[in-house]
Amino acid sequence: MATRPTDRSRPWGEFELIDTLFAPLARGLAGAFDLKDDVATLSPKAGHELVVKTDSTIENVHFMPADPPDTVARKALRRTLSDFAAKGAEPEAYLLAIALPETMEKSWLEGFVEGLSKDQQQFRVALAGGETNRTPGALTITVTTIGWVPEGQVVRRNGAKAGDDVWVTGTIGDAAGGLSLLIGEAVCADEGMREYLIGRFRVPEPRLEFGGLLRGLAHAAIDVSDGLFGDLGHIAETSHVRIEIDSASVPVSRALRALWKMTDEGIARVVSAGDDYEIAFTAPPAAGSIKAAAARSGSPITRIGRIVEGVAGVVLRDAAGSEITVPRKGYRHF
Amino acid sequence: MATRPTDRSRPWGEFELIDTLFAPLARGLAGAFDLKDDVATLSPKAGHELVVKTDSTIENVHFMPADPPDTVARKALRRTLSDFAAKGAEPEAYLLAIALPETMEKSWLEGFVEGLSKDQQQFRVALAGGETNRTPGALTITVTTIGWVPEGQVVRRNGAKAGDDVWVTGTIGDAAGGLSLLIGEAVCADEGMREYLIGRFRVPEPRLEFGGLLRGLAHAAIDVSDGLFGDLGHIAETSHVRIEIDSASVPVSRALRALWKMTDEGIARVVSAGDDYEIAFTAPPAAGSIKAAAARSGSPITRIGRIVEGVAGVVLRDAAGSEITVPRKGYRHF
Repeated sequence: MATRPTDRSRPWGEFELIDTLFAPLARGLAGAFDLKDDVATLSPKAGHELVVKTDSTIENVHFMPADPPDTVARKALRRTLSDFAAKGAEPEAYLLAIALPETMEKSWLEGFVEGLSKDQQQFRVALAGGETNRTPGALTITVTTIGWVPEGQVVRRNGAKAGDDVWVTGTIGDAAGGLSLLIGEAVCADEGMREYLIGRFRVPEPRLEFGGLLRGLAHAAIDVSDGLFGDLGHIAETSHVRIEIDSASVPVSRALRALWKMTDEGIARVVSAGDDYEIAFTAPPAAGSIKAAAARSGSPITRIGRIVEGVAGVVLRDAAGSEITVPRKGYRHF
Repeated sequence: MATRPTDRSRPWGEFELIDTLFAPLARGLAGAFDLKDDVATLSPKAGHELVVKTDSTIENVHFMPADPPDTVARKALRRTLSDFAAKGAEPEAYLLAIALPETMEKSWLEGFVEGLSKDQQQFRVALAGGETNRTPGALTITVTTIGWVPEGQVVRRNGAKAGDDVWVTGTIGDAAGGLSLLIGEAVCADEGMREYLIGRFRVPEPRLEFGGLLRGLAHAAIDVSDGLFGDLGHIAETSHVRIEIDSASVPVSRALRALWKMTDEGIARVVSAGDDYEIAFTAPPAAGSIKAAAARSGSPITRIGRIVEGVAGVVLRDAAGSEITVPRKGYRHF
């Protein structure tokens, strides 16, 4: 772990920061060398391929300035874990690069590290190394997660086949609803629902256990992070298939239904909202094993459509079979 | 590779960016999946450990806004390659997370990608994946490099032994001299020298070939990036040894000598300046093999001091043996 001070006036020492706050997060990993070397080393896992993923989490883009620091940390880490889940891969360690504004308080970083510490226990990962920088700009956290998948078994985007069912875990649109509450675009009188939706924006739940069970069952899968409709578009494009989604079957939470009217426009908003961190996947219609995997891992799943032949793309249909227009994929509210 | 647009008004499409600019950089690596999946996979190298390193490169911290985009790209990548060099490791691939200000021009990104493309050829690495984000703040490039080192042979910081010689590759302080020219803190009438120093700031030369030859020869090594004096301090601390540096033997280029007077204060500035990306290492006095490695790889090396017993730390001595005070390690000019 290296630091790069930009001036002499910093309120706390960078090396103190690493020794007291970050080094304890690296204790579980011998090759992290207590964050006291230039690199980290890991031993390959026999019969497995290495899996890597990097993601930046940026203030005012992926989280709000007032979000509690432990939730910012967890979101930054979990965004990459969610990709591992969607690919049937198992994370082992992560690298952290933080660009801190000059005004950053040490107490904020303590909360941030606490969030990482909790998630390390929950997901059995360790900090392998990283870097702390000062930035003249926005707080930016880049997490690179490293892990393993049994050789040849990574669940790709490109394996969807005509006849497959299309499924998604959990509920869709909650995080966008939470964000609309945080920025005052919507109001929710029910405090429990409000907390639920904001929690979904702040701390996603990567479906790692369910994802692991998808290996050998799913033909294709993707982490739903930029909007269900757009992300299914990636499966359609790489698999050269057409995806038909039944709007009525898209799983929407009670809390979000209380917030947004589920008109055609509302459902279009749901499927184009970001930050779900659920898994969308396709599998042949023998649904028994899929449902067993969902039950075993405690991940609710919903069948939302099917793969058909035709021009690659995604279509959202209402109950009468008419197409619902979905705004430009990946649109975000801030 | 995933993108996250923040508004609808962006001048060019994010997916176009990936398909046309970044995907060609990933062609050499099957497990990069043409940047069309959630993660990248790599096959472990038999008899090797995995090596990972992450580094953020930030506008107005590590590079100047007017630096040509290809040099910014190369610096961002080479900073991690330099760590690989110092550890005797071999890079294979890298992940890229870029946070782009709203005002970023496509032509800038084209230059950036050109720089990466050239360096990929030179250092035989490929883009494995990454992410493009918009940021309300400073342009931030985070590179995570992945590679391999023969099992148990990583050159650590903690192996220095009393009696070792201390060596450094190349010359020290040039990049800081280049930066002082860029920010108008110093003036250099000789255009060739000016270009040389600025070039050293903008595009470091990772000593990968020499670093590989250090395995089995060096007791300890470190990438000199935060200042020679401070970085040797990390070797001293983790090896529990005392390092004595002869100020007159610190290699300083002719160009830097023309810029800064090599008084005690000048040499103290040299050894506390950042961005050298040379390798400092310690080895037992049988210098023949070290010199052969240097000759074979074309990396000039200089013996600058020795490891002694005593309180862990680094001392810089003048020709008379008196200690020269070095300012707080890692100090930077902006």
